[in-house]
This record gives sequence, C-alpha cells and structure tokens, in this order.
Amino acid sequence: MLFHVRMNVNLPLSMPAEQAAQLKQTEKALAQRLQHEGKWRHLWRIAGQYANISVFDVDSVEELHNLLTSLPLFPYMQIDVMPLCRHPSSVRDDDS
Amino acid sequence: MLFHVRMNVNLPLSMPAEQAAQLKQTEKALAQRLQHEGKWRHLWRIAGQYANISVFDVDSVEELHNLLTSLPLFPYMQIDVMPLCRHPSSVRDDDS
Amino acid sequence: MLFHVRMNVNLPLSMPAEQAAQLKQTEKALAQRLQHEGKWRHLWRIAGQYANISVFDVDSVEELHNLLTSLPLFPYMQIDVMPLCRHPSSVRDDDS
Amino acid sequence: MLFHVRMNVNLPLSMPAEQAAQLKQTEKALAQRLQHEGKWRHLWRIAGQYANISVFDVDSVEELHNLLTSLPLFPYMQIDVMPLCRHPSSVRDDDS
Amino acid sequence: MLFHVRMNVNLPLSMPAEQAAQLKQTEKALAQRLQHEGKWRHLWRIAGQYANISVFDVDSVEELHNLLTSLPLFPYMQIDVMPLCRHPSSVRDDDS
Amino acid sequence: MLFHVRMNVNLPLSMPAEQAAQLKQTEKALAQRLQHEGKWRHLWRIAGQYANISVFDVDSVEELHNLLTSLPLFPYMQIDVMPLCRHPSSVRDDDS
Amino acid sequence: MLFHVRMNVNLPLSMPAEQAAQLKQTEKALAQRLQHEGKWRHLWRIAGQYANISVFDVDSVEELHNLLTSLPLFPYMQIDVMPLCRHPSSVRDDDS
Amino acid sequence: MLFHVRMNVNLPLSMPAEQAAQLKQTEKALAQRLQHEGKWRHLWRIAGQYANISVFDVDSVEELHNLLTSLPLFPYMQIDVMPLCRHPSSVRDDDS
Amino acid sequence: MLFHVRMNVNLPLSMPAEQAAQLKQTEKALAQRLQHEGKWRHLWRIAGQYANISVFDVDSVEELHNLLTSLPLFPYMQIDVMPLCRHPSSVRDDDS
Amino acid sequence: MLFHVRMNVNLPLSMPAEQAAQLKQTEKALAQRLQHEGKWRHLWRIAGQYANISVFDVDSVEELHNLLTSLPLFPYMQIDVMPLCRHPSSVRDDDS
Repeated sequence: MLFHVRMNVNLPLSMPAEQAAQLKQTEKALAQRLQHEGKWRHLWRIAGQYANISVFDVDSVEELHNLLTSLPLFPYMQIDVMPLCRHPSSVRDDDS
Repeated sequence: MLFHVRMNVNLPLSMPAEQAAQLKQTEKALAQRLQHEGKWRHLWRIAGQYANISVFDVDSVEELHNLLTSLPLFPYMQIDVMPLCRHPSSVRDDDS
Repeated sequence: MLFHVRMNVNLPLSMPAEQAAQLKQTEKALAQRLQHEGKWRHLWRIAGQYANISVFDVDSVEELHNLLTSLPLFPYMQIDVMPLCRHPSSVRDDDS
Repeated sequence: MLFHVRMNVNLPLSMPAEQAAQLKQTEKALAQRLQHEGKWRHLWRIAGQYANISVFDVDSVEELHNLLTSLPLFPYMQIDVMPLCRHPSSVRDDDS
Repeated sequence: MLFHVRMNVNLPLSMPAEQAAQLKQTEKALAQRLQHEGKWRHLWRIAGQYANISVFDVDSVEELHNLLTSLPLFPYMQIDVMPLCRHPSSVRDDDS
Repeated sequence: MLFHVRMNVNLPLSMPAEQAAQLKQTEKALAQRLQHEGKWRHLWRIAGQYANISVFDVDSVEELHNLLTSLPLFPYMQIDVMPLCRHPSSVRDDDS
Repeated sequence: MLFHVRMNVNLPLSMPAEQAAQLKQTEKALAQRLQHEGKWRHLWRIAGQYANISVFDVDSVEELHNLLTSLPLFPYMQIDVMPLCRHPSSVRDDDS
Repeated sequence: MLFHVRMNVNLPLSMPAEQAAQLKQTEKALAQRLQHEGKWRHLWRIAGQYANISVFDVDSVEELHNLLTSLPLFPYMQIDVMPLCRHPSSVRDDDS
Repeated sequence: MLFHVRMNVNLPLSMPAEQAAQLKQTEKALAQRLQHEGKWRHLWRIAGQYANISVFDVDSVEELHNLLTSLPLFPYMQIDVMPLCRHPSSVRDDDS
Repeated sequence: MLFHVRMNVNLPLSMPAEQAAQLKQTEKALAQRLQHEGKWRHLWRIAGQYANISVFDVDSVEELHNLLTSLPLFPYMQIDVMPLCRHPSSVRDDDS
C-alpha cells in the first residue's frame, strides 16, 4: 500500500554541528535500511530545499506512522501524507 | 532528470459523456506510450481525487513542458511542477 | 484501516430540482449500504455547510478510492483524505 | 452534542525529556478518563504527525472549552473546533 | 448556546432582479422572525461586502444547522461557524 | 460605531506564571471597565482557543486603536478588525 | 474618518462591450463626484490589475457601506476594508 | 512615481524598552524628514495593529528600496510593495 | 526600471479555437515588438503551465500598466507585479 | 536549462554583526563567481525586501541543488524553484 510523503526538515540554527551530523547519520542509516527492506520505496530531494518527496510501501497506516515517528529527524520535520493508489493508466505492475 | 508533477483534473460538468470518454481514452493511450518510453516514470492516483502524482524523466525542461502541454486533458488540468534530484540517502541507482 | 474524509458538495445552481433529488436519493442509499457493511464507519454533517466529515474503514487505499469515486455526488465534491491510526491514549479497541 | 476537534501539538524542542514525558503521562490519564466518561468519544492519530482528530460529546460549548483548556498539553496545542450534527444519511443512532 | 456565524452571499449575476428581490424579501422575513424569537441574537453587515456577522443562540447544533439551511439564501452562501462561550472577563450576564 | 475585533493571544511559554497572571488580571480589570462604559459591547471566548471575538462601540477609529493598543496583552496579540454597520434585516435598534 | 479600501473588479467576459462601457461611465461619474465632495479622498490604480486602492473619508461606517454598495460596479467587485487612523509619525494635519 | 507599501512591525518581546524607544525615535525622525521632503507622501496607522499603510513618491525603484532598507525598524518589518499609477477616474492632479 | 511580472492565462474553454488562435497571434506580435523595443526584456514560459515570468524595463509605472493592459490576453490574465532593483552582488551592468 | 529561483533571507536578529557581514561577504564572492561562470544568469533585488529573484542556467537539477545548498546563506533562506523554458513568443536566442 503506497503513501506519498513530503518531509520538510527544519533543524534549529542553534544546534551544534556535531549533533546535527550525528542525527543525519543515524537518519541516513535508518532510511537506507528501510529502503533495502522495500518499505521506503522512493526518496528524492526537492531541488533547492532541505526537504524530500518519498513514497512508502507499507502494510498498514500504523506501520507508516511508526516508521515516520521513529526517524531521528522526526521532531524537526513537518510531514504531509497522501494515500496513493494504482492509476488506471499505469503500465507498471509494481507501482501499486 | 526527474520532475515531480501533480495534476488536478477538472472536466466541465457540462461536457458530454462521450467527449469526456474520448478525451480520457486518448489521454490513457498517450500516457501509456510515454511510460513505455520511460519518460513518464511513475503515475499514481491520489486517493479520493481526480488527480495524480507523477514523476517524469526527461532530458530538458522543454521536453517536460511539451509532454505536459501535449496531453489531451491539459486544458482541463491545474499542474504543479517540482524539480527532483538524487537524495544523498537514496540506495537506488535508478532513482536519479 | 481508517481514513478521515471531508466531503464538500457543490451542486450546480442550474441543476433541475428533480435531478438533484434523484442524485441525493441514490447517494443516500449507497451511503447507508456502506455504513451497514461497516465500510463507512462514521458520517457527520458539518453544521451550517453542505459538507460532511466521514471515517471509512477499508482494507486498502484502492478500496477507499473506489468507494469514494463510486458515489453519485463524486463529480460535485471536493474531497480531502487523511490516514488515521490508533492513538496511544485511545481506550477504544474498535477505534483502530 | 458532537464537536470535531483537531489538535496539533508543538512541544518546544528545548523542553527537557522528563518534563515532556510527565506532561504526556498526565495528558494520557485525563484523556482516558474523559473517554471512559463518554465525553471524549473518538481519538485518532493523524498518520505522520504529532496531531489528532477527536470527536467530543458534551452538553454545552462551555463544557467543551473547559475540557480542552484543562488538557496539560493545551498551551502547546493549536486547536480547531467544528460543530457536527447528525447526517440525514447516517444509520447510526449513537452518532448524534 | 452561542455560535458565531459569518455568511458571504454570492447571488449569480444572471439571476433575474425580481427573483433576487423575492429571495431577499423571504430571507428578511425569516431573519426578523428568528430575531424576535431570540434565536438570531445579533445580525450585523460587514461594511463594503454582501456578507454578515451573526450570533445565534440555539439549544443544539442540530437547531443551528436547520435554521441556517432553511434560509432562502442558503444555496448562495458560504458559511463559517465558530462555537462561542462565556469569556471570563465578560460583565454581561446575557452574553452566554 | 461598531467594529468586529478578533484577538488571538500568544503568551510566550517562557513567561513566568506570576507575570502572566498579573497581565491577565490588569487586562480583565480594563476589559470590564470598558464594558461597563459601553465601549466594549460584546466579549466572547472562541471555544478551544486562547482567543476572543469582541464588538467595540466607539466614536472614532482613533478611539478603537487607542483602546486596543492600551490593553496589557496587546504586545502578545494578533488582532483583526472589521467595520460593522446596521444590517437592513436587523430588528434591534441598539445593534448599530 | 479614513478607511483603506481595495477593490478588485471582475466583469463577466460575456458582458456586451456597450454594457461594460456604460457601467464604467456611470462608475466614473459617481467616483469623480464623490472625490469632489471629499468623500473619496484617494483613488489609485494597482499597476497591471483591474483593481484600485482607495482611501475614503466618511463620517460613519454606514456612510462608507452605502457609498460602496451604490457603485455601479459593486456587484462585480471584491472589496476589502481596513480602518485607518492617524500615525504618530505623520506630519500631515489633513491625513487623519 | 507612487508605491503602496504595507509595513508590519514585529519587535522581539525580549528587546529592552529603552532600545525599542530609541529605535522608534530615530524611525520617527527619519519618517518625518522623508515626509517633509515629499518622498513619504502618506503614512497611516492600520487600526488595531502595529502596522502602517504608506504611499511613497520616488524617482526610481532603487530609491524606494534604499529608503525602506534605511529605516531603523527595517530588520523587524515585513514589507509588501505594490506599484500604483494614476486612476483614469481620479480628479486629483497631484495623486500620480 | 525593472518590474517582475507573472502572468497566468485562463482562456474560457468555451472560446472558439479560431478566436483563441487570433488572440494569441496578436498577443505574440505585440509581445515581440515590445521585446525588440527593449520594453519587454525577458519572457520565459513556466514549465507545465499556461503562464509566464517576464521582466519589463520601463520608464514609469504608468508605462508598465499601459503595456500590460494593452495586451490582447489581458482580460483573460491574472497578473502579479513586483518592482525589482539592482542587487548589490550583481555583476551585470545591464541588469538594473 | 533555466530555473527561476526566489530566495527570502532571514538572518536571526541575535546574530552578531560581524558574523552577518562575513556571511554576506562570502555569499557575494560566490554569487559573483557563479555569475561570471554563467551559472547564475540573473540576480535582482525585490524592492523593500531582503529577498531576490534569480535565474540559474545549469546543466542538471543536481547542479542547481548543489549550487543553492553551497551558498553560505542557504541555512537562513527560504527558497522556491520553478523550471523555465523558452516562450514561443520570445525573440531572444539566449533566453532559453
């Protein structure tokens, strides 16, 4: 089941550089694990912004919520979620 | 080069059913051709709306514009375009 | 799986009264069937508006989309969908 | 009498973890008591956000206001209230 | 129980003058009856607009909804409702 | 001359409790005096929010501005003002 | 007493040219009379738009409302009104 | 050449009173000099807000920008600029 | 003197194709003449939309307004104007 | 390939003057280098704001993103990007 997720990240300017780097590192590790597991299907950077467009493939809304709130950057993010479903014109079997 | 495109379709209520059906049919044929050509990389339906989220893979902004304006439904659509680029945490080689 | 759905209905002022009445009647019949089936779990009127807040309980996003687009009033509605999940403070077993 | 309430919670990032945990604990206790009393009829989490959709069943607007402002998290919340009433198509007797 | 109601009226420009006059006349008669009954407690014109701010005093949300939807101009109005309650600094006994 | 005024209050979370209490106390005293003088004609709480809807009855815009800016909570408020005038359907002599 | 008024004009595209010209002519005559009377103190065109910024000098809100609603273009206008008062740094005696 | 300028001032609550007073004093002196020079043609207070509507009469956009950015309160202001031109119905020679 | 202008074009769907083509042709001729004259300095298409970003180089706001309102497509356009001036970091002499 | 970029800069008021000056100096040096290289084709100041409109000429979205995020002021900026393409009415060969 696919969900379109937009994440805008706003780290406080006052946050020490090492703390920010540490956060991003753990975020990256978790993001890459979830991608390898197929949960985090797509992850793109929005050009010019510290923000991304993602597509999650999960079994339930609970799973989506738990994944998103488990992200180290979650407290610093504004997140919008839109449920997606297969488009009648889509030719891709794996896009639903 | 990837572009995130949201399309909201508003067909006039007064449009005869056959005209609408014809439009959708030609739209579908073009959309599927472009997907097979790899230009229209992703096409999802936004649940509950006559709208879609798409990701186009094109060689230039001109190409994107020409593809979008060539869609039969273009006159009836509100379109928003966001340039995407590879996310530093992405594990997918084919997602840039 | 629960989805929060807001529906704002805008019937054209020019629509003949009987057509509107017919539409509403078929809409009501379908809405009540879906409620009896447990799909359309809650349906409330927003005071002062021709709009409602609903909660759907479906097995997939596809099912939600098909239900919403099958509503006779769908062409006349603006619909917003938000995925819901169980709140950690909820005491209701049946609210997830 | 039913009211649709959306609560977005924004705890200051600078708040010590224990204080936040304490606040959430007292909030949860009060929320669960009010649910058992039937005042707080529904409480769902909006997926991906520290926010909820609730439906309150109260005897007056004053009661609603007092309940909301008595919540420990009230100072950290942005709250929107919409009055609901029974939908003519609703089949549930207990949903008004 | 008090509700703050803003009504913006948009009569179609194509509506014949007599029809508009007739509508306004029946609207005025109903509005004045409801004021005399104490239901429609305040009715002010927003300067420069075909819109009003009203305060209704009703026994339930249902009653509010029925009153508003019974207005002849309802189909031509955009309505926003906010529940009001007694302010702790109010000196007026009759303002709750 | 009537003005519709919406006041949203945002006290800094870091403000000491006593300072907040003192502010609110002087605000209440001034608000009640102005109500007794007939300047502050209506004062209602918006349910669920630290905000109010007020109606001021003043002799000039200057007087309105001076009253609002003299409120102890003024520096912490977002204020919107709309000029009101007598509605042609109003039955109340004292509502203009 | 001064009011800042923004008027956006939207004449229907379907309106016959002569009707539009006639409307504009009567609008201009009334606007110029009111300027000579000192009621309509300032009238500027917003560059690039069929819209204006005006400042009215009236004795009451009623007078403002009556003037605005008496304009031939009123049914085709979206109007926003803001009450102005003398700025403490203003050096102009006649600007209040 | 006339420009409509709206300035909303947001001084930090933490700013010492004397610093604020000093800022306002130098702002006032500059504002009054510019008015006497004819650059700052109109300056009105928006009732109920720490904001103003101004009309500047300058020889170029550069001059406007330099004047605005030279204001002591500039760092604390949100500024919107709209170019104005003579309205065809204006009777004032000096209003262009 | 430079002005940033965004133009969104909305031709009525009901407009006959020839009329639309004729309009666009005269618009193009005028646009190209103005570009050759140096008035219309830049004209870009916003990808995916029937809209453009332009930069005009004019001697006064009046000139800008007259140029924009003389465009055949003006009645069908929503136009936003922002005054530009030379950026302190710009290296281009001709960009002011 | 051209991209329209709007940058709004919000330096924290608490930032020491020297740090701000240093940031702006390195920003200016980089901006001027990129302009000389042809990447940063246009850079204009929005009158009255600490913001600019820019047009970038890059070979890919990645390049655009890397340039923008490499700007010293990036952490303090809100950036919006719109892809541009050649307008059919443009007479300039170098504007695509």
